[in-house]
Amino acid sequence: MRALWPQAEVAHWVPGSPPADYAVVWAPPQAFFDEQPGLKAVFNLGAGVDALLKLRIPPQTQLVRLDDAGMAVQMAEYVCHALIRHFRALDAYAADTHAGRWTQRPTRARADFPVGILGAGVLGQRVAQALRGFDFPVNVWSRQPKQLDGVRGFAGAAQLDDFLAASKGLVCLLPLTVDTENILNRRSLSRLQPGGYVVNVARGAHLVEADLLALLDSGHLAGATLDVFRNEPLPAAHPFWAHPKISITPHTSARTLREESLVQIAGKLQALLQGLPVAGMVERERGY
Amino acid sequence: MRALWPQAEVAHWVPGSPPADYAVVWAPPQAFFDEQPGLKAVFNLGAGVDALLKLRIPPQTQLVRLDDAGMAVQMAEYVCHALIRHFRALDAYAADTHAGRWTQRPTRARADFPVGILGAGVLGQRVAQALRGFDFPVNVWSRQPKQLDGVRGFAGAAQLDDFLAASKGLVCLLPLTVDTENILNRRSLSRLQPGGYVVNVARGAHLVEADLLALLDSGHLAGATLDVFRNEPLPAAHPFWAHPKISITPHTSARTLREESLVQIAGKLQALLQGLPVAGMVERERGY
Repeated sequence: MRALWPQAEVAHWVPGSPPADYAVVWAPPQAFFDEQPGLKAVFNLGAGVDALLKLRIPPQTQLVRLDDAGMAVQMAEYVCHALIRHFRALDAYAADTHAGRWTQRPTRARADFPVGILGAGVLGQRVAQALRGFDFPVNVWSRQPKQLDGVRGFAGAAQLDDFLAASKGLVCLLPLTVDTENILNRRSLSRLQPGGYVVNVARGAHLVEADLLALLDSGHLAGATLDVFRNEPLPAAHPFWAHPKISITPHTSARTLREESLVQIAGKLQALLQGLPVAGMVERERGY
Repeated sequence: MRALWPQAEVAHWVPGSPPADYAVVWAPPQAFFDEQPGLKAVFNLGAGVDALLKLRIPPQTQLVRLDDAGMAVQMAEYVCHALIRHFRALDAYAADTHAGRWTQRPTRARADFPVGILGAGVLGQRVAQALRGFDFPVNVWSRQPKQLDGVRGFAGAAQLDDFLAASKGLVCLLPLTVDTENILNRRSLSRLQPGGYVVNVARGAHLVEADLLALLDSGHLAGATLDVFRNEPLPAAHPFWAHPKISITPHTSARTLREESLVQIAGKLQALLQGLPVAGMVERERGY
Protein backbone atom coordinates (compact mmCIF):
# COMPACT_ATOMS: atom_id res chain seq x y z
CA MET A 1 0.00 0.00 0.00
CA ARG A 2 2.90 2.34 0.79
CA ALA A 3 4.42 1.60 -2.60
CA LEU A 4 1.13 2.18 -4.43
CA TRP A 5 0.19 5.26 -2.44
CA PRO A 6 3.42 6.99 -1.39
CA GLN A 7 1.71 10.22 -0.28
CA ALA A 8 -0.37 8.34 2.36
CA GLU A 9 0.59 7.55 5.92
CA VAL A 10 0.00 3.80 6.27
CA ALA A 11 -0.18 2.09 9.67
CA HIS A 12 -1.47 -1.14 11.21
CA TRP A 13 -4.40 -0.52 13.51
CA VAL A 14 -4.00 -1.54 17.14
CA PRO A 15 -6.28 -0.45 19.99
CA GLY A 16 -5.48 3.17 20.75
CA SER A 17 -4.12 4.00 17.26
CA PRO A 18 -4.57 7.61 16.12
CA PRO A 19 -7.62 8.36 13.95
CA ALA A 20 -7.48 7.43 10.24
CA ASP A 21 -9.36 8.69 7.20
CA TYR A 22 -9.45 5.36 5.34
CA ALA A 23 -9.07 1.74 6.37
CA VAL A 24 -8.56 -1.65 4.71
CA VAL A 25 -10.18 -4.38 6.82
CA TRP A 26 -11.00 -8.06 7.07
CA ALA A 27 -13.20 -9.15 9.99
CA PRO A 28 -12.40 -6.13 12.21
CA PRO A 29 -13.57 -6.08 15.85
CA GLN A 30 -16.32 -3.69 16.99
CA ALA A 31 -13.62 -1.82 18.97
CA PHE A 32 -12.04 -0.70 15.70
CA PHE A 33 -15.15 1.21 14.59
CA ASP A 34 -15.82 2.49 18.14
CA GLU A 35 -12.36 4.07 18.16
CA GLN A 36 -12.52 5.45 14.60
CA PRO A 37 -15.64 7.67 14.43
CA GLY A 38 -14.07 9.88 11.73
CA LEU A 39 -13.46 7.20 9.10
CA LYS A 40 -14.45 8.32 5.60
CA ALA A 41 -14.35 4.91 3.97
CA VAL A 42 -13.54 1.30 4.73
CA PHE A 43 -12.36 -1.12 2.05
CA ASN A 44 -13.38 -4.70 2.79
CA LEU A 45 -10.85 -7.36 1.69
CA GLY A 46 -13.49 -9.53 0.08
CA ALA A 47 -16.73 -9.41 -1.88
CA GLY A 48 -19.10 -10.34 0.98
CA VAL A 49 -19.81 -7.67 3.62
CA ASP A 50 -22.43 -9.60 5.61
CA ALA A 51 -20.16 -9.95 8.67
CA LEU A 52 -19.16 -6.27 8.50
CA LEU A 53 -22.79 -5.13 8.43
CA LYS A 54 -23.43 -6.82 11.76
CA LEU A 55 -21.16 -4.24 13.45
CA ARG A 56 -22.11 -0.70 14.52
CA ILE A 57 -20.40 1.51 11.96
CA PRO A 58 -20.45 5.33 12.01
CA PRO A 59 -23.20 6.46 9.60
CA GLN A 60 -20.94 8.62 7.43
CA THR A 61 -18.38 5.85 6.89
CA GLN A 62 -18.67 4.54 3.33
CA LEU A 63 -18.21 0.78 2.97
CA VAL A 64 -16.56 -0.46 -0.22
CA ARG A 65 -16.18 -4.10 -1.21
CA LEU A 66 -13.71 -5.70 -3.61
CA ASP A 67 -15.44 -6.37 -6.86
CA ASP A 68 -13.02 -8.87 -8.34
CA ALA A 69 -9.33 -8.77 -7.45
CA GLY A 70 -8.72 -12.16 -9.00
CA MET A 71 -11.71 -13.77 -7.31
CA ALA A 72 -13.99 -14.03 -10.35
CA VAL A 73 -11.65 -16.26 -12.36
CA GLN A 74 -11.12 -18.49 -9.32
CA MET A 75 -14.91 -18.81 -8.92
CA ALA A 76 -15.23 -19.69 -12.59
CA GLU A 77 -12.53 -22.36 -12.21
CA TYR A 78 -14.03 -23.85 -9.08
CA VAL A 79 -17.62 -23.93 -10.37
CA CYS A 80 -16.70 -25.28 -13.83
CA HIS A 81 -14.54 -27.97 -12.26
CA ALA A 82 -17.35 -29.06 -9.94
CA LEU A 83 -20.01 -29.13 -12.65
CA ILE A 84 -17.82 -30.84 -15.28
CA ARG A 85 -16.78 -33.44 -12.69
CA HIS A 86 -20.46 -34.20 -12.09
CA PHE A 87 -21.68 -33.90 -15.70
CA ARG A 88 -18.91 -36.13 -17.04
CA ALA A 89 -19.27 -38.70 -14.22
CA LEU A 90 -15.58 -38.33 -13.40
CA ASP A 91 -16.03 -39.61 -9.85
CA ALA A 92 -17.60 -42.78 -11.25
CA TYR A 93 -14.66 -43.12 -13.65
CA ALA A 94 -12.25 -42.67 -10.72
CA ALA A 95 -14.06 -45.46 -8.85
CA ASP A 96 -13.82 -47.63 -11.97
CA THR A 97 -10.08 -46.99 -12.15
CA HIS A 98 -9.70 -47.84 -8.47
CA ALA A 99 -11.49 -51.14 -9.12
CA GLY A 100 -9.46 -51.87 -12.26
CA ARG A 101 -12.50 -51.51 -14.54
CA TRP A 102 -12.24 -50.14 -18.11
CA THR A 103 -15.82 -49.04 -18.86
CA GLN A 104 -17.10 -46.24 -21.07
CA ARG A 105 -20.23 -44.75 -19.53
CA PRO A 106 -23.13 -43.26 -21.52
CA THR A 107 -22.65 -39.64 -22.58
CA ARG A 108 -25.15 -37.01 -21.47
CA ALA A 109 -26.63 -34.29 -23.65
CA ARG A 110 -25.65 -30.85 -22.41
CA ALA A 111 -29.05 -29.53 -23.48
CA ASP A 112 -30.34 -31.68 -20.57
CA PHE A 113 -28.06 -29.97 -18.08
CA PRO A 114 -29.12 -26.32 -17.85
CA VAL A 115 -27.26 -24.48 -15.11
CA GLY A 116 -28.86 -21.72 -13.04
CA ILE A 117 -26.75 -19.08 -11.33
CA LEU A 118 -28.16 -17.21 -8.35
CA GLY A 119 -26.56 -13.78 -8.52
CA ALA A 120 -25.42 -11.77 -11.54
CA GLY A 121 -22.74 -9.55 -10.08
CA VAL A 122 -19.09 -9.55 -11.11
CA LEU A 123 -18.68 -13.15 -9.91
CA GLY A 124 -21.97 -14.50 -11.29
CA GLN A 125 -21.36 -12.96 -14.70
CA ARG A 126 -17.88 -14.43 -14.97
CA VAL A 127 -19.16 -17.89 -14.00
CA ALA A 128 -22.01 -17.59 -16.52
CA GLN A 129 -19.56 -16.70 -19.27
CA ALA A 130 -17.28 -19.63 -18.41
CA LEU A 131 -20.19 -22.11 -18.46
CA ARG A 132 -21.38 -20.72 -21.79
CA GLY A 133 -17.89 -21.49 -23.09
CA PHE A 134 -18.70 -25.17 -22.49
CA ASP A 135 -22.06 -24.81 -24.29
CA PHE A 136 -24.23 -25.43 -21.22
CA PRO A 137 -27.59 -23.64 -21.28
CA VAL A 138 -27.25 -20.95 -18.58
CA ASN A 139 -29.96 -19.22 -16.55
CA VAL A 140 -29.23 -16.32 -14.23
CA TRP A 141 -31.41 -14.96 -11.42
CA SER A 142 -30.83 -11.52 -9.98
CA ARG A 143 -32.69 -8.95 -7.89
CA GLN A 144 -32.98 -6.53 -10.81
CA PRO A 145 -33.33 -7.72 -14.43
CA LYS A 146 -29.98 -7.98 -16.28
CA GLN A 147 -29.27 -8.65 -19.94
CA LEU A 148 -26.31 -11.02 -20.39
CA ASP A 149 -25.13 -12.45 -23.70
CA GLY A 150 -26.36 -15.96 -24.41
CA VAL A 151 -27.93 -16.27 -20.95
CA ARG A 152 -31.60 -16.52 -19.97
CA GLY A 153 -32.32 -13.92 -17.31
CA PHE A 154 -34.83 -14.12 -14.45
CA ALA A 155 -35.38 -11.40 -11.85
CA GLY A 156 -36.99 -10.88 -8.49
CA ALA A 157 -38.99 -13.10 -6.18
CA ALA A 158 -41.76 -13.48 -8.77
CA GLN A 159 -39.48 -15.31 -11.23
CA LEU A 160 -37.48 -17.42 -8.78
CA ASP A 161 -39.65 -20.53 -9.21
CA ASP A 162 -39.48 -20.36 -13.01
CA PHE A 163 -35.71 -19.95 -12.79
CA LEU A 164 -35.41 -23.02 -10.57
CA ALA A 165 -37.70 -25.14 -12.75
CA ALA A 166 -35.55 -24.26 -15.78
CA SER A 167 -32.32 -25.40 -14.05
CA LYS A 168 -30.69 -28.71 -13.15
CA GLY A 169 -27.35 -27.40 -11.91
CA LEU A 170 -27.60 -24.57 -9.37
CA VAL A 171 -24.78 -22.23 -8.39
CA CYS A 172 -25.21 -19.83 -5.47
CA LEU A 173 -23.22 -16.60 -5.79
CA LEU A 174 -25.57 -14.26 -3.93
CA PRO A 175 -24.61 -11.75 -1.27
CA LEU A 176 -25.88 -12.82 2.15
CA THR A 177 -28.73 -10.54 3.21
CA VAL A 178 -31.98 -10.93 5.16
CA ASP A 179 -33.65 -11.68 1.81
CA THR A 180 -31.20 -14.39 0.72
CA GLU A 181 -30.51 -16.19 4.00
CA ASN A 182 -31.85 -19.78 3.78
CA ILE A 183 -32.73 -19.29 0.10
CA LEU A 184 -31.45 -22.83 -0.62
CA ASN A 185 -34.14 -24.77 1.23
CA ARG A 186 -36.42 -27.75 0.75
CA ARG A 187 -39.00 -25.71 -1.14
CA SER A 188 -36.59 -24.05 -3.56
CA LEU A 189 -34.30 -27.05 -4.12
CA SER A 190 -37.35 -29.26 -4.77
CA ARG A 191 -38.16 -27.08 -7.76
CA LEU A 192 -34.88 -27.87 -9.51
CA GLN A 193 -35.14 -30.48 -12.26
CA PRO A 194 -34.75 -34.08 -10.99
CA GLY A 195 -31.07 -35.01 -10.70
CA GLY A 196 -30.23 -31.48 -9.60
CA TYR A 197 -26.72 -30.58 -8.51
CA VAL A 198 -25.98 -27.74 -6.07
CA VAL A 199 -22.78 -25.68 -5.86
CA ASN A 200 -22.62 -23.20 -2.98
CA VAL A 201 -19.70 -20.79 -3.14
CA ALA A 202 -21.37 -17.82 -1.45
CA ARG A 203 -22.13 -18.16 2.27
CA GLY A 204 -23.06 -21.14 4.42
CA ALA A 205 -26.15 -19.35 5.73
CA HIS A 206 -27.72 -19.43 2.24
CA LEU A 207 -28.27 -23.17 2.68
CA VAL A 208 -30.60 -25.03 5.04
CA GLU A 209 -28.29 -27.98 5.57
CA ALA A 210 -30.93 -30.48 6.74
CA ASP A 211 -33.03 -29.75 3.63
CA LEU A 212 -30.11 -30.50 1.34
CA LEU A 213 -29.48 -33.80 3.12
CA ALA A 214 -33.17 -34.77 2.85
CA LEU A 215 -33.28 -34.07 -0.91
CA LEU A 216 -30.05 -36.01 -1.48
CA ASP A 217 -31.52 -38.93 0.45
CA SER A 218 -34.77 -38.79 -1.53
CA GLY A 219 -32.78 -38.87 -4.77
CA HIS A 220 -34.24 -35.61 -6.10
CA LEU A 221 -30.77 -34.08 -5.91
CA ALA A 222 -27.79 -35.98 -7.32
CA GLY A 223 -25.09 -34.23 -5.33
CA ALA A 224 -23.53 -31.02 -4.10
CA THR A 225 -20.19 -29.24 -3.95
CA LEU A 226 -19.95 -26.91 -0.97
CA ASP A 227 -17.18 -24.46 -0.15
CA VAL A 228 -18.96 -22.50 2.61
CA PHE A 229 -20.74 -23.54 5.78
CA ARG A 230 -22.82 -22.12 8.62
CA ASN A 231 -19.96 -22.83 10.99
CA GLU A 232 -16.39 -22.64 9.71
CA PRO A 233 -14.28 -24.64 10.18
CA LEU A 234 -16.96 -27.25 9.59
CA PRO A 235 -17.42 -29.06 12.95
CA ALA A 236 -15.76 -32.48 13.15
CA ALA A 237 -19.02 -34.37 13.67
CA HIS A 238 -20.84 -32.72 10.73
CA PRO A 239 -22.46 -35.18 8.25
CA PHE A 240 -21.08 -33.23 5.23
CA TRP A 241 -17.53 -34.47 5.93
CA ALA A 242 -18.21 -38.04 4.80
CA HIS A 243 -21.43 -37.82 2.75
CA PRO A 244 -20.94 -39.84 -0.46
CA LYS A 245 -22.82 -37.27 -2.58
CA ILE A 246 -21.22 -34.13 -1.14
CA SER A 247 -17.77 -32.71 -1.94
CA ILE A 248 -16.48 -30.06 0.43
CA THR A 249 -13.57 -27.62 0.46
CA PRO A 250 -12.52 -25.25 3.27
CA HIS A 251 -13.81 -21.87 1.97
CA THR A 252 -11.17 -21.72 -0.73
CA SER A 253 -13.17 -21.34 -3.96
CA ALA A 254 -11.99 -17.73 -4.43
CA ARG A 255 -9.22 -16.44 -2.22
CA THR A 256 -8.42 -12.75 -1.93
CA LEU A 257 -5.16 -12.19 -3.78
CA ARG A 258 -2.91 -9.61 -2.14
CA GLU A 259 -1.43 -7.87 -5.18
CA GLU A 260 -4.69 -7.63 -7.10
CA SER A 261 -6.58 -6.42 -4.03
CA LEU A 262 -4.10 -3.68 -3.23
CA VAL A 263 -4.06 -2.39 -6.80
CA GLN A 264 -7.85 -2.37 -6.84
CA ILE A 265 -8.17 -0.59 -3.49
CA ALA A 266 -5.64 2.04 -4.55
CA GLY A 267 -7.72 2.64 -7.68
CA LYS A 268 -10.95 2.91 -5.72
CA LEU A 269 -9.37 5.32 -3.23
CA GLN A 270 -8.08 7.47 -6.07
CA ALA A 271 -11.57 7.59 -7.61
CA LEU A 272 -13.19 8.41 -4.25
CA LEU A 273 -10.79 11.31 -3.69
CA GLN A 274 -11.54 12.67 -7.17
CA GLY A 275 -15.30 12.27 -6.70
CA LEU A 276 -15.54 9.74 -9.53
CA PRO A 277 -17.94 6.75 -9.49
CA VAL A 278 -16.57 3.77 -7.59
CA ALA A 279 -17.71 0.18 -8.14
CA GLY A 280 -18.49 -1.88 -5.06
CA MET A 281 -20.03 0.91 -2.91
CA VAL A 282 -22.12 -0.90 -0.29
CA GLU A 283 -25.73 0.16 0.25
CA ARG A 284 -26.28 -0.72 3.88
CA GLU A 285 -30.09 -0.97 3.65
CA ARG A 286 -29.78 -3.39 0.71
CA GLY A 287 -27.19 -5.40 2.58
CA TYR A 288 -24.46 -5.49 -0.10
CA MET B 1 -28.73 -40.93 -42.29
CA ARG B 2 -31.85 -41.95 -44.18
CA ALA B 3 -33.75 -39.06 -42.58
CA LEU B 4 -31.00 -36.55 -43.38
CA TRP B 5 -30.39 -37.83 -46.90
CA PRO B 6 -33.67 -39.27 -48.20
CA GLN B 7 -32.48 -39.53 -51.82
CA ALA B 8 -29.66 -41.92 -50.86
CA GLU B 9 -29.80 -45.68 -50.55
CA VAL B 10 -28.40 -46.44 -47.07
CA ALA B 11 -27.26 -49.93 -46.05
CA HIS B 12 -25.09 -51.63 -43.43
CA TRP B 13 -21.99 -53.16 -44.96
CA VAL B 14 -21.53 -56.90 -44.56
CA PRO B 15 -19.06 -59.04 -46.52
CA GLY B 16 -20.43 -59.41 -50.04
CA SER B 17 -22.51 -56.19 -49.96
CA PRO B 18 -23.02 -54.47 -53.34
CA PRO B 19 -20.61 -51.63 -54.21
CA ALA B 20 -21.23 -48.23 -52.62
CA ASP B 21 -20.20 -44.71 -53.60
CA TYR B 22 -19.76 -43.38 -50.05
CA ALA B 23 -19.21 -44.98 -46.66
CA VAL B 24 -19.29 -43.97 -43.00
CA VAL B 25 -16.79 -46.06 -41.01
CA TRP B 26 -15.22 -46.66 -37.65
CA ALA B 27 -12.37 -49.17 -37.51
CA PRO B 28 -13.37 -51.05 -40.67
CA PRO B 29 -11.62 -54.33 -41.58
CA GLN B 30 -9.27 -54.54 -44.58
CA ALA B 31 -11.89 -56.73 -46.29
CA PHE B 32 -14.20 -53.73 -46.51
CA PHE B 33 -11.80 -51.75 -48.69
CA ASP B 34 -10.79 -54.86 -50.68
CA GLU B 35 -14.45 -55.35 -51.63
CA GLN B 36 -15.19 -51.69 -52.36
CA PRO B 37 -12.68 -50.56 -55.01
CA GLY B 38 -15.10 -47.95 -56.39
CA LEU B 39 -15.61 -45.91 -53.20
CA LYS B 40 -15.50 -42.18 -53.85
CA ALA B 41 -15.19 -41.09 -50.23
CA VAL B 42 -15.10 -42.52 -46.72
CA PHE B 43 -16.20 -40.53 -43.70
CA ASN B 44 -14.37 -41.54 -40.54
CA LEU B 45 -16.44 -41.39 -37.33
CA GLY B 46 -13.73 -39.59 -35.38
CA ALA B 47 -10.98 -37.02 -35.71
CA GLY B 48 -8.01 -39.42 -35.75
CA VAL B 49 -7.42 -41.45 -38.92
CA ASP B 50 -4.16 -43.13 -37.88
CA ALA B 51 -5.76 -46.60 -37.70
CA LEU B 52 -7.48 -46.11 -41.06
CA LEU B 53 -4.23 -45.13 -42.77
CA LYS B 54 -2.68 -48.48 -41.84
CA LEU B 55 -5.11 -50.19 -44.24
CA ARG B 56 -4.73 -50.54 -48.02
CA ILE B 57 -7.28 -48.08 -49.41
CA PRO B 58 -8.00 -47.55 -53.15
CA PRO B 59 -5.99 -44.51 -54.28
CA GLN B 60 -9.00 -42.55 -55.58
CA THR B 61 -11.00 -42.96 -52.35
CA GLN B 62 -11.05 -39.65 -50.51
CA LEU B 63 -10.80 -39.94 -46.71
CA VAL B 64 -12.68 -37.37 -44.67
CA ARG B 65 -12.49 -37.00 -40.89
CA LEU B 66 -14.96 -35.44 -38.47
CA ASP B 67 -13.71 -32.02 -37.55
CA ASP B 68 -15.80 -31.46 -34.46
CA ALA B 69 -19.23 -33.08 -34.08
CA GLY B 70 -19.39 -32.17 -30.41
CA MET B 71 -15.88 -33.45 -29.69
CA ALA B 72 -14.16 -30.07 -29.28
CA VAL B 73 -16.30 -28.93 -26.36
CA GLN B 74 -15.84 -32.30 -24.66
CA MET B 75 -12.07 -31.98 -25.07
CA ALA B 76 -12.20 -28.47 -23.60
CA GLU B 77 -14.20 -29.78 -20.63
CA TYR B 78 -11.91 -32.72 -20.02
CA VAL B 79 -8.66 -30.76 -20.31
CA CYS B 80 -9.86 -27.78 -18.23
CA HIS B 81 -11.13 -30.14 -15.54
CA ALA B 82 -7.80 -31.97 -15.39
CA LEU B 83 -5.69 -28.80 -15.29
CA ILE B 84 -7.89 -26.96 -12.76
CA ARG B 85 -7.93 -30.05 -10.55
CA HIS B 86 -4.13 -30.00 -10.56
CA PHE B 87 -3.64 -26.22 -10.40
CA ARG B 88 -6.09 -25.79 -7.53
CA ALA B 89 -4.72 -28.83 -5.61
CA LEU B 90 -8.22 -30.32 -5.49
CA ASP B 91 -6.89 -33.86 -4.95
CA ALA B 92 -5.00 -32.63 -1.90
CA TYR B 93 -8.18 -30.97 -0.64
CA ALA B 94 -10.09 -34.22 -1.18
CA ALA B 95 -7.45 -36.07 0.86
CA ASP B 96 -7.78 -33.42 3.58
CA THR B 97 -11.54 -33.92 3.64
CA HIS B 98 -11.09 -37.67 3.85
CA ALA B 99 -8.82 -37.15 6.87
CA GLY B 100 -11.18 -34.63 8.47
CA ARG B 101 -8.69 -31.75 8.01
CA TRP B 102 -9.84 -28.15 7.39
CA THR B 103 -6.76 -26.53 5.84
CA GLN B 104 -6.46 -23.74 3.30
CA ARG B 105 -3.49 -24.37 1.05
CA PRO B 106 -1.33 -21.65 -0.53
CA THR B 107 -2.71 -20.19 -3.76
CA ARG B 108 -0.62 -20.38 -6.93
CA ALA B 109 -0.13 -17.57 -9.43
CA ARG B 110 -1.57 -18.48 -12.82
CA ALA B 111 1.26 -16.56 -14.48
CA ASP B 112 3.45 -19.41 -13.17
CA PHE B 113 1.32 -22.05 -14.88
CA PRO B 114 1.64 -21.53 -18.62
CA VAL B 115 -0.06 -24.29 -20.58
CA GLY B 116 1.27 -25.56 -23.89
CA ILE B 117 -0.99 -27.26 -26.40
CA LEU B 118 0.50 -29.59 -29.00
CA GLY B 119 -1.78 -29.24 -32.01
CA ALA B 120 -3.80 -26.27 -33.22
CA GLY B 121 -6.60 -27.91 -35.17
CA VAL B 122 -10.29 -27.65 -34.35
CA LEU B 123 -9.74 -29.41 -31.02
CA GLY B 124 -6.54 -27.61 -30.01
CA GLN B 125 -8.03 -24.21 -30.81
CA ARG B 126 -11.12 -24.87 -28.71
CA VAL B 127 -9.01 -26.04 -25.77
CA ALA B 128 -6.76 -22.98 -26.09
CA GLN B 129 -9.78 -20.68 -26.04
CA ALA B 130 -11.23 -22.40 -22.96
CA LEU B 131 -7.94 -22.13 -21.05
CA ARG B 132 -7.64 -18.46 -21.99
CA GLY B 133 -11.08 -18.03 -20.41
CA PHE B 134 -9.44 -18.98 -17.10
CA ASP B 135 -6.58 -16.50 -17.71
CA PHE B 136 -3.85 -19.13 -18.04
CA PRO B 137 -0.98 -18.13 -20.33
CA VAL B 138 -1.39 -20.42 -23.36
CA ASN B 139 1.23 -21.57 -25.88
CA VAL B 140 0.33 -23.54 -28.98
CA TRP B 141 2.62 -25.63 -31.16
CA SER B 142 1.64 -26.64 -34.67
CA ARG B 143 3.26 -27.91 -37.85
CA GLN B 144 2.53 -24.68 -39.71
CA PRO B 145 2.49 -21.26 -37.97
CA LYS B 146 -0.99 -20.20 -36.81
CA GLN B 147 -2.17 -16.89 -35.37
CA LEU B 148 -4.61 -17.41 -32.49
CA ASP B 149 -6.04 -14.64 -30.30
CA GLY B 150 -4.24 -14.24 -26.99
CA VAL B 151 -2.10 -17.31 -27.58
CA ARG B 152 1.67 -17.55 -28.14
CA GLY B 153 2.30 -19.60 -31.26
CA PHE B 154 5.24 -21.88 -32.03
CA ALA B 155 5.66 -23.88 -35.22
CA GLY B 156 7.69 -26.73 -36.61
CA ALA B 157 10.47 -28.89 -35.24
CA ALA B 158 12.77 -25.88 -34.87
CA GLN B 159 10.51 -24.23 -32.27
CA LEU B 160 9.45 -27.30 -30.32
CA ASP B 161 12.08 -26.90 -27.60
CA ASP B 162 11.25 -23.23 -27.05
CA PHE B 163 7.56 -24.15 -26.84
CA LEU B 164 8.26 -26.82 -24.21
CA ALA B 165 10.54 -24.54 -22.17
CA ALA B 166 7.76 -21.92 -22.10
CA SER B 167 5.18 -24.42 -20.77
CA LYS B 168 4.44 -26.10 -17.45
CA GLY B 169 1.15 -27.78 -18.34
CA LEU B 170 1.28 -29.79 -21.58
CA VAL B 171 -1.76 -30.97 -23.55
CA CYS B 172 -1.33 -33.36 -26.48
CA LEU B 173 -3.96 -32.98 -29.21
CA LEU B 174 -1.84 -33.97 -32.21
CA PRO B 175 -2.82 -36.38 -34.94
CA LEU B 176 -0.79 -39.57 -34.74
CA THR B 177 1.67 -39.69 -37.64
CA VAL B 178 5.21 -40.97 -38.17
CA ASP B 179 6.39 -37.50 -37.11
CA THR B 180 4.40 -37.34 -33.88
CA GLU B 181 4.66 -40.92 -32.61
CA ASN B 182 6.65 -40.96 -29.34
CA ILE B 183 6.75 -37.14 -29.28
CA LEU B 184 6.12 -37.22 -25.51
CA ASN B 185 9.43 -38.75 -24.43
CA ARG B 186 12.15 -38.25 -21.86
CA ARG B 187 13.90 -35.61 -23.92
CA SER B 188 10.83 -33.49 -24.69
CA LEU B 189 9.13 -33.86 -21.29
CA SER B 190 12.41 -32.93 -19.55
CA ARG B 191 12.23 -29.56 -21.27
CA LEU B 192 8.94 -28.64 -19.62
CA GLN B 193 9.25 -26.31 -16.65
CA PRO B 194 9.81 -28.15 -13.33
CA GLY B 195 6.53 -29.31 -11.83
CA GLY B 196 5.18 -30.02 -15.30
CA TYR B 197 1.80 -31.66 -15.77
CA VAL B 198 0.92 -33.78 -18.84
CA VAL B 199 -2.55 -34.32 -20.32
CA ASN B 200 -2.70 -36.78 -23.22
CA VAL B 201 -6.04 -36.87 -25.02
CA ALA B 202 -4.72 -37.73 -28.49
CA ARG B 203 -3.29 -41.24 -28.96
CA GLY B 204 -1.43 -43.56 -26.63
CA ALA B 205 1.41 -43.94 -29.13
CA HIS B 206 2.33 -40.27 -28.67
CA LEU B 207 3.70 -41.12 -25.23
CA VAL B 208 6.73 -43.19 -24.27
CA GLU B 209 5.18 -44.59 -21.12
CA ALA B 210 8.42 -45.56 -19.36
CA ASP B 211 9.77 -42.02 -19.87
CA LEU B 212 6.71 -40.49 -18.21
CA LEU B 213 7.10 -42.83 -15.24
CA ALA B 214 10.80 -41.96 -14.89
CA LEU B 215 10.12 -38.21 -14.90
CA LEU B 216 7.31 -38.58 -12.36
CA ASP B 217 9.65 -40.58 -10.15
CA SER B 218 12.42 -37.99 -10.47
CA GLY B 219 9.95 -35.28 -9.47
CA HIS B 220 10.48 -33.20 -12.63
CA LEU B 221 6.85 -33.86 -13.56
CA ALA B 222 4.13 -33.39 -10.94
CA GLY B 223 1.52 -35.61 -12.54
CA ALA B 224 -0.43 -36.65 -15.60
CA THR B 225 -3.99 -37.21 -16.77
CA LEU B 226 -4.19 -39.81 -19.52
CA ASP B 227 -7.22 -40.81 -21.58
CA VAL B 228 -5.42 -42.84 -24.27
CA PHE B 229 -2.94 -45.70 -24.13
CA ARG B 230 -0.73 -47.83 -26.39
CA ASN B 231 -2.94 -50.80 -25.63
CA GLU B 232 -6.64 -50.26 -24.98
CA PRO B 233 -8.20 -51.44 -22.76
CA LEU B 234 -5.18 -50.69 -20.58
CA PRO B 235 -3.79 -54.11 -19.52
CA ALA B 236 -4.66 -55.13 -15.96
CA ALA B 237 -1.04 -55.25 -14.79
CA HIS B 238 -0.13 -51.79 -16.17
CA PRO B 239 1.50 -49.43 -13.62
CA PHE B 240 -0.75 -46.51 -14.73
CA TRP B 241 -3.80 -48.07 -13.03
CA ALA B 242 -2.62 -47.36 -9.51
CA HIS B 243 0.08 -44.70 -9.90
CA PRO B 244 -0.53 -41.98 -7.28
CA LYS B 245 0.41 -39.16 -9.70
CA ILE B 246 -1.53 -40.44 -12.73
CA SER B 247 -5.28 -40.16 -13.36
CA ILE B 248 -6.64 -42.33 -16.14
CA THR B 249 -9.95 -42.61 -18.00
CA PRO B 250 -10.95 -45.20 -20.64
CA HIS B 251 -10.63 -43.19 -23.88
CA THR B 252 -13.67 -41.08 -23.08
CA SER B 253 -12.37 -37.49 -23.22
CA ALA B 254 -14.30 -36.76 -26.43
CA ARG B 255 -16.85 -39.28 -27.58
CA THR B 256 -18.33 -39.17 -31.07
CA LEU B 257 -21.92 -37.97 -30.71
CA ARG B 258 -24.33 -39.64 -33.12
CA GLU B 259 -26.62 -36.74 -33.97
CA GLU B 260 -23.86 -34.18 -34.42
CA SER B 261 -21.77 -36.61 -36.47
CA LEU B 262 -24.57 -37.48 -38.85
CA VAL B 263 -25.49 -33.85 -39.43
CA GLN B 264 -21.85 -33.04 -40.09
CA ILE B 265 -21.33 -35.96 -42.47
CA ALA B 266 -24.49 -35.06 -44.40
CA GLY B 267 -23.14 -31.51 -44.75
CA LYS B 268 -19.75 -32.71 -45.95
CA LEU B 269 -21.33 -35.10 -48.45
CA GLN B 270 -23.51 -32.31 -49.80
CA ALA B 271 -20.44 -30.09 -50.23
CA LEU B 272 -18.46 -32.89 -51.89
CA LEU B 273 -21.25 -33.51 -54.41
CA GLN B 274 -21.42 -29.80 -55.20
CA GLY B 275 -17.64 -29.53 -55.57
CA LEU B 276 -17.39 -27.12 -52.66
CA PRO B 277 -14.47 -27.07 -50.19
CA VAL B 278 -14.84 -29.62 -47.38
CA ALA B 279 -13.10 -29.37 -44.01
CA GLY B 280 -11.38 -32.50 -42.73
CA MET B 281 -10.10 -33.85 -46.07
CA VAL B 282 -7.27 -36.22 -45.16
CA GLU B 283 -3.92 -35.83 -46.92
CA ARG B 284 -2.56 -39.36 -46.84
CA GLU B 285 1.12 -38.38 -47.19
CA ARG B 286 0.81 -35.96 -44.28
CA GLY B 287 -0.95 -38.60 -42.21
CA TYR B 288 -4.03 -36.59 -41.17
